Order: sequence, then structure tokens, then C-alpha cells
Amino acid sequence: MVRSPKYIENSQGTLWLTEDERDHLKISYRIKDILHEETSPYQHVMVLDSHDFGPMLVLDGVVQTTSMDGYIYNEMIAHVPLSVHPHPRNVLIIGGGDCGAANEAAKYERVERIDLVEIDEAVVRASKRYMPEVSGGLSDPRVRYHYEDGVKFVQQAAAEYDVIIVDSSDPVGPAKQLFEFDFYQNVHRALKEDGLMVCQSQSPIFHADVMLKSYERIGRLFPHRKLYTTVVPTYPGGLWSFTIGSKRALPAPESIRFDKKARYANEEILRQCFALPTFLQEMLKNQG
Amino acid sequence: MVRSPKYIENSQGTLWLTEDERDHLKISYRIKDILHEETSPYQHVMVLDSHDFGPMLVLDGVVQTTSMDGYIYNEMIAHVPLSVHPHPRNVLIIGGGDCGAANEAAKYERVERIDLVEIDEAVVRASKRYMPEVSGGLSDPRVRYHYEDGVKFVQQAAAEYDVIIVDSSDPVGPAKQLFEFDFYQNVHRALKEDGLMVCQSQSPIFHADVMLKSYERIGRLFPHRKLYTTVVPTYPGGLWSFTIGSKRALPAPESIRFDKKARYANEEILRQCFALPTFLQEMLKNQG
Repeated sequence: MVRSPKYIENSQGTLWLTEDERDHLKISYRIKDILHEETSPYQHVMVLDSHDFGPMLVLDGVVQTTSMDGYIYNEMIAHVPLSVHPHPRNVLIIGGGDCGAANEAAKYERVERIDLVEIDEAVVRASKRYMPEVSGGLSDPRVRYHYEDGVKFVQQAAAEYDVIIVDSSDPVGPAKQLFEFDFYQNVHRALKEDGLMVCQSQSPIFHADVMLKSYERIGRLFPHRKLYTTVVPTYPGGLWSFTIGSKRALPAPESIRFDKKARYANEEILRQCFALPTFLQEMLKNQG
Repeated sequence: MVRSPKYIENSQGTLWLTEDERDHLKISYRIKDILHEETSPYQHVMVLDSHDFGPMLVLDGVVQTTSMDGYIYNEMIAHVPLSVHPHPRNVLIIGGGDCGAANEAAKYERVERIDLVEIDEAVVRASKRYMPEVSGGLSDPRVRYHYEDGVKFVQQAAAEYDVIIVDSSDPVGPAKQLFEFDFYQNVHRALKEDGLMVCQSQSPIFHADVMLKSYERIGRLFPHRKLYTTVVPTYPGGLWSFTIGSKRALPAPESIRFDKKARYANEEILRQCFALPTFLQEMLKNQG
């Protein structure tokens, strides 16, 4: 008998995961197999092998990343800040339990230390074991794992990091604080004097309010900020935004160099991701 | 009593449209109201007012375009070819019954004639009436409507058009032939000696086979071809491809100029859409 854990529906012998975090849109994925399921102290954690996307990391019933397209998000959240910073040595990743961003950061030889602060060890374990396409099976000795609250972690850091990557889930539940002004203020203090931060700032289409708030807060703290976008096929709306806040002026996109091996990112992609559609330019302008 | 036409499910008083054209992925949209429903000689046509996307055009139960994001697709299928062609005068649009592409093409003063060949008049009528955000309520005297089969229409044309836009639905049912080699051959003949065509060539992620076949066929006929992408939030996978086939060499992206009023497209966007992710470059390279 096939067991049907929380969030999984067995419909005439086929398994479906239906994301119903949204009131007006439901997405259902047909599931081949439940690779992993546990209830951690923080959330419900699953890795589901799906027909269309391969193994997917699912937290509290919501798809976080998939083996098919996880590399796009992870490459874009890591390589943009690491390419625009002239000499990233110490990198802090808040969240990012799927290990994908850390795996990308580890491609930079000059990076000496990568602190990965993920509150939920269960996510790291499951990703390493069942999602090698995303985690890269990460085993780089420069990566230090801190299974703690990212909010508290940055409170204790000062002028330590060149690049801080805020790789959070949606601003509900544990990740909510990672979008607050206080948190950004601590991130600002944790950065060296020429440091920069990047955060995933949600969909410009479905979560424009969150994106704009994040953009405004970062603008209050950092003299230089820039928003860029990419496509994340398995996130609603496809178009996804990231926001950089920097203590030093950011280089012009055309001067960005990139020579790492990657599946999505290349030099042209890292330059063009700053070109924003007109509606998005106008949103940011009105935001001030 | 709320009537529930084909494809619409009434679940405890709320209406849902579930797209189930795909075997392993289902997307359900919550519907406020059924604005229009008819069975035309070609297909089942609806305009549904949805909570998240506003009025949506739905053909045979599949969402074609929405008031919220339809402009992205239509601007990108029209403005890229019309910006790279040095002097577009006669434009042919095959499909495009939502009138969005024709509405964008009508922004070019130098365009003298726009032939819109849509097999199903019901689609044009419904789009003009219920989807002004997409159709722009198109009433330009340069637009000539031909309610006929696009495949037959291009068989009869020779050296008439500067730009041909193939704005088809998915390659199932009536649109299937619009992806065949014979059709592209007729499109080639219908173009002037410096003409170019563009077609929507599906998702590089979900329909890579269709995209690559289309790319290969266009390459057999045209000495110059180029693929570009954009984000279409309501299409599965978000990332969408378009392929240009041209009789003359295409300009370098950085020389593209654009001064039309548009909501998504701008000069930078029209240039950067040709920058392809690494995985896509490799797919095309392997295709030869």
C-alpha cells in the first residue's frame, strides 16, 4: 500500500502534490515516489520525485527547488554578487539549506570561507542526499555549517563579510524576519566597508509589495542598490527578482567578467540580468 | 444558480478552471466570472475573469493569454522582428487572434499594411470585446482581417511581406501544421528578398523537442536565424522561446533601436533577449 503523507493526495493510484498556499491558483505535481519525509523541529520536510521536475525539495507542502531547474536560481543568486564584488573572500549565506548557492560560491578559488547559516539541518541533510543536481553533493572544506537562526547569527557579526547572500524562502513562517528592516541593518553591519548583500526579493508580478518593500529598505541602508531578474520555471510567474545593496558603487554591467562553469549563467546573462522591463523600471521609480 | 460550462468545476460555490493538457502538472485558476463562452466551428472559446490574472482567453480549456501578462508575449513577438528589420512595411500575422501582436505592429508608422490571418473569428471577437488590455481594442485601418487557414493563406502569397509573425497556439489541433517544414517553406516564399519571419517556438524546458525542430527547419530555409527568449508568467516554465529566420543578415543586438511606448519592451530588453543561458546555447549547438 502506498502511504500518503501530509500534503500528498492519492488519486486513483497516482500521487499528487498540490500547492495551495495561494488562494486563487493551485499547482499540482504528479509524484513518482516519496524519497524522504520528516517533521523537523521547524517544518515538514519532503523530497518528492516528480515526473516533470525530478526530485523536488518540499517544505510545508510548498516546492522550494527542483532538480530540473534549481541551478538557475542558485547560479543567479550566487554568481551575480560574486561577479560584481571585486575580491570576495568571506561569504555568508543565510538560508540556502539546499546547498546550491554555497556550491556555486565554492567555484571561486579566492573565496576563503563560506558560512552557511540554515536553521534546519534536516533540509541540508535531505538536499545533500537526494538532490545532488542542486546541492552538488557539496563537500568543500571552506564551507562551515551553522544550524542556527540567521537573524541571530547576523546580530553577532560585524565587518566580517565581503558578500552576504540572503537565500530565504517566502516571507511566511520562519523566513518572515529575513525581509525586515532590522535584519537588513544587521546584514549591513556584518559586511566589510566595501561589502555587498543580495537577497531574493520575490516575484515582481505576484509579490510586488514584498519586492518594493525590500528594495526600499535596502535603499535606506545602502548607498548603492540594484535589482536584477531571472526566470525560475517552477516559481509562480516565472519572473523572479533579486536585490543587491552595496556599500561601494557597483560596476557597470558591461564590465562584469565570468569564467566559471555553469549551466545557466554566463558573462552575457550576468550582464543582461540588470536590464529591466519597463513596467518594473516604473514600479521602482515610483517607489523612489 | 451558477452554470458550469465545459472545463469549469464548481467546488463548493467557487469556480475553478483546471488545465490538464499535461499529464504530470495541473494548474487551477480560481474564476470570478464567465464573461463569454461559445463553441466555434474550430474550438471551445471562453473568456474567464480570474482572480489572479483578470480576464483570460481560454481555448479548448487551455489558457492562451491573460489581461495581466498578455502584453509581455505580444510585445516580444512583435517588437523584436519589427526592430531588427530595417523598414517593415507589409506585415503578416498568422494566428494572433487575440489581436495583441497586430496592436503592437500598428505602433510603427511606417507599417502600411497588417494582414491578420486567424482561422477563428470567434477569438478575435471575444478578445476585442472582453480583453482590451491585450487586444488594445484594435481598430487600426491598416489591419485587414482574414478569417481563414493560415497554412493556405501563405501558400498563395509570394514576395509580399517584410515581416511574417507566426503567433500560433501550441502544436496540437489546428496549430500543428504551423510548425511543419512545408509551412515554413511557404512563409519563406511569401517574404520579400530581405524579409524575415518569427515564430513562437515553445518552452526550452518543457518543449525542447518542438523548439529544436523548429530551429532546425528554419535553419534549412533561411541563411540567418536567431533564437531569443522572454518570460511569460502564465505559460508553464515561464521561459519562452521565439525563433527568427531571415533572408538578410541580422543586425548586432547592440544596434537595435526602439522608441515605441510599451509596458514590457524597451531598447535594453530588445537587445538582451538574444543573450541565451548556457544550457540553451548548448542545446542549439548540438542541434547544429
